[in-house]
Amino acid sequence: MPEIDKSQLHVYREIHEQPAVLARLLDEEQTSIARVAAEIKRRQIDHIVIAARGTSDNAARYAQYLLGACNRLVVGLAAPSLFTIYDAPPRFGNALVLGISQSGKSPDIVSVLAEARRQGAPTAALTNFADSDLADAADHVVQLRAGEERSVAATKTYTAELTAIAMLSVALVADEGRGEALRRIPGKVREALDAHAEMARVAERYRYMISCVTIGRGYNYSTAFELALKLKEMTYTVVEPY
Amino acid sequence: MPEIDKSQLHVYREIHEQPAVLARLLDEEQTSIARVAAEIKRRQIDHIVIAARGTSDNAARYAQYLLGACNRLVVGLAAPSLFTIYDAPPRFGNALVLGISQSGKSPDIVSVLAEARRQGAPTAALTNFADSDLADAADHVVQLRAGEERSVAATKTYTAELTAIAMLSVALVADEGRGEALRRIPGKVREALDAHAEMARVAERYRYMISCVTIGRGYNYSTAFELALKLKEMTYTVVEPY
Repeated sequence: MPEIDKSQLHVYREIHEQPAVLARLLDEEQTSIARVAAEIKRRQIDHIVIAARGTSDNAARYAQYLLGACNRLVVGLAAPSLFTIYDAPPRFGNALVLGISQSGKSPDIVSVLAEARRQGAPTAALTNFADSDLADAADHVVQLRAGEERSVAATKTYTAELTAIAMLSVALVADEGRGEALRRIPGKVREALDAHAEMARVAERYRYMISCVTIGRGYNYSTAFELALKLKEMTYTVVEPY
Repeated sequence: MPEIDKSQLHVYREIHEQPAVLARLLDEEQTSIARVAAEIKRRQIDHIVIAARGTSDNAARYAQYLLGACNRLVVGLAAPSLFTIYDAPPRFGNALVLGISQSGKSPDIVSVLAEARRQGAPTAALTNFADSDLADAADHVVQLRAGEERSVAATKTYTAELTAIAMLSVALVADEGRGEALRRIPGKVREALDAHAEMARVAERYRYMISCVTIGRGYNYSTAFELALKLKEMTYTVVEPY
């Protein structure tokens, strides 16, 4: 491990946990993901409403592109305050309602799933905690298995969320080639992390940056937003995603 | 008219056209709005997918809150690049697809509506131009009647879009009290514009501002985003909406 500021120790460790987290997710959640895929097919679900905040909201943007382009599903992002500050929540109709939350504790995300259940809409949760309020409110729980998060910047949870969404996309089409590609992700992430020293050298140039712009398109649009969020949280730089 | 920089002349004029624009919209588009409302009821539409960019995308956020809270409709924002850069567009199912565009020319917005029509989903357009590509691609056209836009900052189009969305919400519930409230909007906007001198005095303090944050919740969330967009376009200030 290179020399590193102590306050950054958790961030560094958790970034480097990613290959193990993603391998565990790919190993242990095939069954729960397959159940969500089966429910989508059985009910002929034509759109998915996602309730999420912050980092998980960025993962939801990835779902919008991936499930839209590969599975032809319309994916919308719920406005959670519709379920908390206004009287009448929207009717979900023939939607699957998916809550994404690291802790599974966010009350506004839980309230969207609780309302969906009251309306008889199928519900699913992506969370680290199978004993959380969010998991309780969901018919199907996919555990992210990223372990406890001690750093503010939830990188391992973000990549676990993207991977779980990709697993769902593959399960819906039962494409063995894409399934094989998914299983190569932990190794590819390990290779990327090996570039740490080179990245540190490149990053030096931006040490005194006070503002910047992050840009991404399609499948990378979500990560442009997530990178902006991370830079704002950790470096107090003004960052604008496009 | 107060003393004003010549480059700002169009902006100033178009801001002050708003009461007349909104009055015209309220007078002349009741019928087209009523047709969209009837289509939503007849087909038992349970969700609306909106395709829009920039200012119109902010108006779409308003639709998400207003039609969600007052009409219990789930409103999602389309990712137009799904329809242009990827192969397989999402299936709209039982959705109404609404395109919002000042000019009606934006090819990616038009392509979302064209695909919806191919799929047999009902389509509607909010635009200033009844002879635009967007209007051609839509079953129902609501003309914003904001007239030509000569300034970059499309204030009159933005408020016309919000008003048209509010008219649709009222038409769906046929609430005479809310209809009456809508008809008071042009007068209220005129009153707000009368505060011009006072606003100029208050704004002086922010003359050398280099960054700021705009905040809004629920029905005002969209306008926090629109204000941020306007400040960025017109003053080159770094503005972050929440």
